[in-house]
Amino acid sequence: MSVLSAPTFDDVLDAAARLDGAAHRTPVLTSRTADARAGATLFFKCENFQRMGAFKFRGAYNAISHFDAEQRNAGVITYSSGNHAQAIALAAKLAGIRATIVMPLDAPAAKRAATEGYGGEVVTYDRYTENREEIGARLARERGMTLIPPYDHPHVIAGQGTAVKELIDEVGPLDVLVVCLGGGGLLAGSALSAAALAPGIRIVGVEPEAGNDGQQSLARGEVVHIPAPRTIADGAASTHLGAYNFPIIRALVERIVTVSDAQLVDTMRFFAERMKMVVEPTGCLAAAAVLERVLPVEGKRVGVIISGGNVDLVRYAAFLRG
Amino acid sequence: MSVLSAPTFDDVLDAAARLDGAAHRTPVLTSRTADARAGATLFFKCENFQRMGAFKFRGAYNAISHFDAEQRNAGVITYSSGNHAQAIALAAKLAGIRATIVMPLDAPAAKRAATEGYGGEVVTYDRYTENREEIGARLARERGMTLIPPYDHPHVIAGQGTAVKELIDEVGPLDVLVVCLGGGGLLAGSALSAAALAPGIRIVGVEPEAGNDGQQSLARGEVVHIPAPRTIADGAASTHLGAYNFPIIRALVERIVTVSDAQLVDTMRFFAERMKMVVEPTGCLAAAAVLERVLPVEGKRVGVIISGGNVDLVRYAAFLRG
Repeated sequence: MSVLSAPTFDDVLDAAARLDGAAHRTPVLTSRTADARAGATLFFKCENFQRMGAFKFRGAYNAISHFDAEQRNAGVITYSSGNHAQAIALAAKLAGIRATIVMPLDAPAAKRAATEGYGGEVVTYDRYTENREEIGARLARERGMTLIPPYDHPHVIAGQGTAVKELIDEVGPLDVLVVCLGGGGLLAGSALSAAALAPGIRIVGVEPEAGNDGQQSLARGEVVHIPAPRTIADGAASTHLGAYNFPIIRALVERIVTVSDAQLVDTMRFFAERMKMVVEPTGCLAAAAVLERVLPVEGKRVGVIISGGNVDLVRYAAFLRG
Repeated sequence: MSVLSAPTFDDVLDAAARLDGAAHRTPVLTSRTADARAGATLFFKCENFQRMGAFKFRGAYNAISHFDAEQRNAGVITYSSGNHAQAIALAAKLAGIRATIVMPLDAPAAKRAATEGYGGEVVTYDRYTENREEIGARLARERGMTLIPPYDHPHVIAGQGTAVKELIDEVGPLDVLVVCLGGGGLLAGSALSAAALAPGIRIVGVEPEAGNDGQQSLARGEVVHIPAPRTIADGAASTHLGAYNFPIIRALVERIVTVSDAQLVDTMRFFAERMKMVVEPTGCLAAAAVLERVLPVEGKRVGVIISGGNVDLVRYAAFLRG
């Protein structure tokens, strides 16, 4: 397997061209009520309205668009706690190639059903006792498939960066950009775009309290591994940052803050009640940091990424009832 | 009280200028899943993302913008089952004038709270035994306030028409336009815009099965009054079309179809699960007609108005749980 170069903003521009016409250019919504809560001017980039319901489509589609004939013939494999799985399954379907997804046994039922609905083959594992990277690598070898991991890949990072490129192209200069992170694909890609298009911008990552490996990694200057965290933010329940992702995050991200599951539920309810949007727990991370004033942004123009909206309706209804 | 002229498309253009910068230009969303269900190309105009969560802000703001100094001094009064109440309260607050709202005792708690939150004074009545028009007219006389009814008013109709003007300006020609109706403010205004901007378009109204007074009125050629219907579509639970509204609807609307409460719940769940939007029952009327194939639109380009997203979270959660 060849080693790919670290992604740059040029790779984001290349990804944007590949995604043109395939991905939705998602709306940017504003809310006076949200602004009043944060004491700032907030621009919500709504990737919950992206195809398959999350930004992950961007990275998956971009990665598969780089496949040569041999790779297309054998197909793609990945491991994912949910949205990347659907993204790979949908992007593979659009490319007319096979997809195998290694998915945790306790992944949300809606995400598994959607993955299979797009024609992906699902192989399950126990995320508390087994190692998904090893399972994915072994199956890739056995089947000759190309492994596209959920975040630790230059084409994935470049694809995810296109959302913030669209945001800044649409609303102009920002003082602060707030982005959730699990393995750091969206955060690294967003940082490449923000640093290139809005020099001087402050870039802040947000992760769940239960799994602050990113915060620890920035403090230590190296990638810190943690046990699988238990949080409602299933899309950010990763155990470590990616090898491609960490250097970009270390170079461009000012700080990483954390929010609690209770703050995520408050934010989910705010989005439903005041902004009429369904946002999954992970998608609430960045917004929770500003709406709950974990991150002070008074008087600033702030870009806030809503990463996705895929949540079982029964589970979502339980969150709304509080 | 002076009698106002029937509204025309010129009044919609005038309203659009008055609303510029005050109302949101709401996004138009598309969904391949929705298109597949309807067998058509659907453009959803998302007035659930409008200020105060519904299209009603447009008509209320436009009406109050016509007030002279004396009217502004005395304030505005209205009666409403919900969204028009909030719209008047917010528009009055922005204009710096007083607002009194006559509201049914069983109006959704979220709508009453939001109305009071905008500074409106709420006076309640029993919608099964009392007549809100009479109460509103009496209070208007006693207090010298200007009555802006929820739909039967030229400035309200003209304001509501701006949403479809924006839709057609953005997406181009449409074959069919599908709009919900209660008293017919949104439908009449939308019809003025659609007939002017997309000649030959088929305009279809959708109302709840339990209260098909509009359908009966088109069939009879006169405004039919019915008892207060019991439906989850509280925003369309009116008993008759307006005097200004009916002639426009009769002239421009091809037909009115009905959908059941069960079809509204299915559609509400579809919006949450697949399009990540919170839509109130009334806001699902137009979409239900095409997604449930009550109205055949195969192969057509169809504009579908989502009228609002204001629904108590506890009630909404119960709908989602099914």
